[in-house]
Amino acid sequence: MKQETEEQQDFVKEVTKMSDDFDRWYTDVVRKAEMADWSGVRGMMVVRPYGWAMWEAIMRAFDDMIKESGHENWAFPLLIPREYLMKEAEHVEGFAPEVAWVTKAGGGMEELEEPLAVRPTSETIIGAIIKRYIQSHRDLPKLTNQWNSVVRWEMRSRLFLRSREFWWQEGHTFHASGQEAMDEAQLILGYYRSIAEDWLAVPVLVGKKSPAETFPGAVHTLTLEGLMRDGLALQMGTSHYFGQNFARAYDISFSNRENERELCYSTSWGISTRLVGALVMAHGDDSGLIVPPRIAPTQVIVVPIFRDDEGRAKVERFISSWAGELKAAGIRHRVDWRDERPGDKYAHWELKGVPIRLNVGARDADAGNVEMVDRLTRERVSIPVAGIGQRLTKALDAFQRELFDRAQKFQRDNTYELGTLDEVVAHFRERGGFVWAGWCGDAEEEAKIKADAGGVTVRVIDEATEAAGKCLVCSKPAKFRVALAKAY
Amino acid sequence: MKQETEEQQDFVKEVTKMSDDFDRWYTDVVRKAEMADWSGVRGMMVVRPYGWAMWEAIMRAFDDMIKESGHENWAFPLLIPREYLMKEAEHVEGFAPEVAWVTKAGGGMEELEEPLAVRPTSETIIGAIIKRYIQSHRDLPKLTNQWNSVVRWEMRSRLFLRSREFWWQEGHTFHASGQEAMDEAQLILGYYRSIAEDWLAVPVLVGKKSPAETFPGAVHTLTLEGLMRDGLALQMGTSHYFGQNFARAYDISFSNRENERELCYSTSWGISTRLVGALVMAHGDDSGLIVPPRIAPTQVIVVPIFRDDEGRAKVERFISSWAGELKAAGIRHRVDWRDERPGDKYAHWELKGVPIRLNVGARDADAGNVEMVDRLTRERVSIPVAGIGQRLTKALDAFQRELFDRAQKFQRDNTYELGTLDEVVAHFRERGGFVWAGWCGDAEEEAKIKADAGGVTVRVIDEATEAAGKCLVCSKPAKFRVALAKAY
Repeated sequence: MKQETEEQQDFVKEVTKMSDDFDRWYTDVVRKAEMADWSGVRGMMVVRPYGWAMWEAIMRAFDDMIKESGHENWAFPLLIPREYLMKEAEHVEGFAPEVAWVTKAGGGMEELEEPLAVRPTSETIIGAIIKRYIQSHRDLPKLTNQWNSVVRWEMRSRLFLRSREFWWQEGHTFHASGQEAMDEAQLILGYYRSIAEDWLAVPVLVGKKSPAETFPGAVHTLTLEGLMRDGLALQMGTSHYFGQNFARAYDISFSNRENERELCYSTSWGISTRLVGALVMAHGDDSGLIVPPRIAPTQVIVVPIFRDDEGRAKVERFISSWAGELKAAGIRHRVDWRDERPGDKYAHWELKGVPIRLNVGARDADAGNVEMVDRLTRERVSIPVAGIGQRLTKALDAFQRELFDRAQKFQRDNTYELGTLDEVVAHFRERGGFVWAGWCGDAEEEAKIKADAGGVTVRVIDEATEAAGKCLVCSKPAKFRVALAKAY
Repeated sequence: MKQETEEQQDFVKEVTKMSDDFDRWYTDVVRKAEMADWSGVRGMMVVRPYGWAMWEAIMRAFDDMIKESGHENWAFPLLIPREYLMKEAEHVEGFAPEVAWVTKAGGGMEELEEPLAVRPTSETIIGAIIKRYIQSHRDLPKLTNQWNSVVRWEMRSRLFLRSREFWWQEGHTFHASGQEAMDEAQLILGYYRSIAEDWLAVPVLVGKKSPAETFPGAVHTLTLEGLMRDGLALQMGTSHYFGQNFARAYDISFSNRENERELCYSTSWGISTRLVGALVMAHGDDSGLIVPPRIAPTQVIVVPIFRDDEGRAKVERFISSWAGELKAAGIRHRVDWRDERPGDKYAHWELKGVPIRLNVGARDADAGNVEMVDRLTRERVSIPVAGIGQRLTKALDAFQRELFDRAQKFQRDNTYELGTLDEVVAHFRERGGFVWAGWCGDAEEEAKIKADAGGVTVRVIDEATEAAGKCLVCSKPAKFRVALAKAY
């Protein structure tokens, strides 16, 4: 079983080449770059500071966005009574297989009267609580969010992508009209797109999920899908419109402008630590990570080069003379004074994907220069330290753009338009990527695509473009333009 | 039972007067000010945005402090195998009675091979994990922290102070020498003192706990204790030095400079959402909360006053003309356009403890003035809007200082020096506060103080002052100068 092998891997000595074995490369890089490890508790990971700092950057960026538009953070309970979980039938069916249950507590491990679920997601408990705070249309919208971890009893594991605990934000909003709730789900999709593209530098396809891929209990699910360097798609966030489904199950109603009771319209949406895995797989190479500057815990690493104490003192004085400028410019930087050879330090920071490295020796100090190397081109350029803060700010901005452009080129180069299921099957036998095709919308035909093309699924329904041509399965007029891919 | 009454209270109509019933006043204020409520899941609370925003301010402040000194955030698993928990004997004894256990998982609710504890604190799991990352003295210190929630199966409940789930940070650090670890515990105590005094405006006594009050498994525990307005002390944070106790139980060792294996020295430390309860009880009055500006989700509330649409338009234009200045000055402010009478709005924001209120009517608009009212003095002063950003920044700083000075005066007015147990018993029959006294250090005598004086405990051992005089119980020479109090 995959989980066993991955969790049982020993200390990583050397990173497997991406071209040799992408899966192994991925876990090697994540572990060797000190982002995360398996914890020893089966299926649960430990996120180390380098990985967590990336998640913190994502949290900060998204939290600012949602607060700006009036969303508020709450803290709802971790443990959910079984009866709450059981109220929305589809939702139960979707989540029950993955729930971990607290059944005992206290010194004697006494049996609880009713088992409590460790939250797999919080629609049910929030539904049960929020209705107290909603009486009239004046109490709406209620735009709630929380940052926490959830537990889902997964049987397969992959660091950041699938584990029994992961960290996320879950937004849950309640509205006086269906249109307003649908607009909310779209607004958040836009934020997610910005997190993916502007922060993680990962271009995404956005659109609706097919019914088979829709969240349990939702009317529709919006999604964003990125393309990893092995050609597999990764779902990078979802935003769900529930209509009145949850409000009905949890009796969340308000008195509308006509003074009649009406059920609320609700949404929920989430992005998770999975995004950290996404940036690894979307940008990395044989040497390791490449981290987008806006997310990078360390944006600039300074490697001092010297032979003796005198040289060290000289280089140290030189670095001190301009390090303040980096700090003033808000650049996250470190000087690597560890007792290692420069070459080993270069490899270390390349593996960690730090965007810009500055090599600084005694001769540089004399000349008032430093040697700048960026993780993408790896070209060495000598730059003067005069105005270094501004120069590096520009270089980091350019790096962020280039990384996105590179990922976008990769996505375009791996996106196809095909007409028939045979072509699709043949395509995915040879390669990955996204395949655009027409689809009539029939669920059985969707299942047939998945069965025939080895797990290929409808990732996104393109809502911006009208469908043209024929359904790839039945050749009837296509109702939807869809992107197909193999996915994580 | 307290928990039942508190959790079963209905919607709060009017806030009980503090002087009538402090306990009831507290829960009324916390609920009516929209900070938190009982969740419906027994013993577990829901923290609402107004309360959570205060915790976010505390988190941000403390996170900045610890990062500045090289601490790093990690995410360790929520669920802890029973065998991990059982390794440190004192620790197990301390926590086992409060643990909630996950025993089943998945669709059929299959029994797990080994029960998993929902973390009550993370010493054990961190001990089991961190040792992989520690080989040599060069890997030390390891300065870890995590922000999360913990579950402890408490039988009594009080919003923010005692609940089955609470939110906190837990720091866990590992060092190459005992002195360094002790210094770390002191460093953090200093940060906590700054959070309490500089941010929450609550003066604290700091020092060591007596052995009876020391954390299970610790060599010593440092603490800070604030005084609430009912005269009871509240423990506002603790910082523990473990010596090699945990390292021994979890086999966390390193090769020292002499190339010999040595067990690590460790610490742990935490502050929690309890601090939000502290600021309520340390500053509030009959009208509700008084929130220190540095923590306040809303620092300045603007209440527009108008009779008709024309008046409203005029006031709105006027406010828009200077609201940007508040934003530029970084002042967290809101304009209350709700459809309520001004008097009701005043009471609403007084209850919520917003430091400064600006009343703005049409005549103010003509004169270029606003009426400023602060929550402490409640005096109304007319101030010009020219330079309003700077003026309010100053007023908020002054408010923060005054709030601290007021709390410090209250603490001093309620601190006593007494010589004998009889005096102490008599004192606490009549009033609360801190009582300084000499103590010989005998544990049985400590128990006698608690029994005779109705639950009074040794809150802090003053380490800065040498003990003089006699032990309050046995009259032998005092070894310690201690502060006694009834506490939450």
